[in-house]
Amino acid sequence: MIEVESKYRSPGNEKIEKALVKLGATQISNGPMEDLYFAHPSRDFGKTDEALRLRKREDGAELTYKGPRIHADGAKAREEITLRTDNPLTMQRIVERLGFKESYVLRKTRTSYMLDKLRVDIDDVEGLGEFVELEVLTESPERSKQLLELARAELGLEKLEPKTYLEMIIEKQS
Amino acid sequence: MIEVESKYRSPGNEKIEKALVKLGATQISNGPMEDLYFAHPSRDFGKTDEALRLRKREDGAELTYKGPRIHADGAKAREEITLRTDNPLTMQRIVERLGFKESYVLRKTRTSYMLDKLRVDIDDVEGLGEFVELEVLTESPERSKQLLELARAELGLEKLEPKTYLEMIIEKQS
Repeated sequence: MIEVESKYRSPGNEKIEKALVKLGATQISNGPMEDLYFAHPSRDFGKTDEALRLRKREDGAELTYKGPRIHADGAKAREEITLRTDNPLTMQRIVERLGFKESYVLRKTRTSYMLDKLRVDIDDVEGLGEFVELEVLTESPERSKQLLELARAELGLEKLEPKTYLEMIIEKQS
Repeated sequence: MIEVESKYRSPGNEKIEKALVKLGATQISNGPMEDLYFAHPSRDFGKTDEALRLRKREDGAELTYKGPRIHADGAKAREEITLRTDNPLTMQRIVERLGFKESYVLRKTRTSYMLDKLRVDIDDVEGLGEFVELEVLTESPERSKQLLELARAELGLEKLEPKTYLEMIIEKQS
């Protein structure tokens, strides 16, 4: 699936949640998550703009491959392939035996809402601050962007953040 | 888990099944399976004696990493890490995006029995013939070998086959 999404610096997560509830959005999940990012044994993911991530939540885990970003004009699109698993430790052991090395860990608390076809993730990221991610999953890329723009305006999101959390963490640590 | 197992040329799969039933063994599964083996993007699994295998059965799928064989004196032991998944196609797509290439496909029909702590897999392998694999999972390595030897004698298995199916397939095709 191609995911079209935009990330913004949050003007205040509480404020965003209140606005979403007013718009009739439904909360679909809320809780901490830990994202392990892996380095490839022979490819520099930083250069190829790919990522392999194992996400652990309280209610489950998933392995995600992220392909290179396709657009850079505000909204970003990239291939994402996600496999749910009920055994993240076994998944991690296999990945590590294959030569992938844990490179970064990112912890955040995420509260997610759905508003029709739009998904809004309200994130509090350890060491980075508060962010809001808008994502449309099922529409055509053009309609997706229009829906994203509409939601952006409704929620008062002004500061686009084109970097991934991983890029921000790497930048901060170096 | 360290798996201790021995593989033999079968003196006739029907005969083996009858002998097992007489010994009081219980059939635990029966059906076709397809094993996809992958080549590593930067490691020669043939040289490192490792394997990455995606097994598809009618009732599910699993990804298995196999480490190098530890002993070569008849019974073989190697680390195996297995992750069950209900979505083998997604698993395969992630593995391929990471640079692993499908190298061999092995199809077989396997009928499996348990006899106390012993597992017996009776295989009919496409292009290779009939084989019987004995495996003990929970005992100490020394006791495992004694149990394997006992079962070998009871079932009349004489022709030890030290090669993996994958090695036999590669040999046959080259």
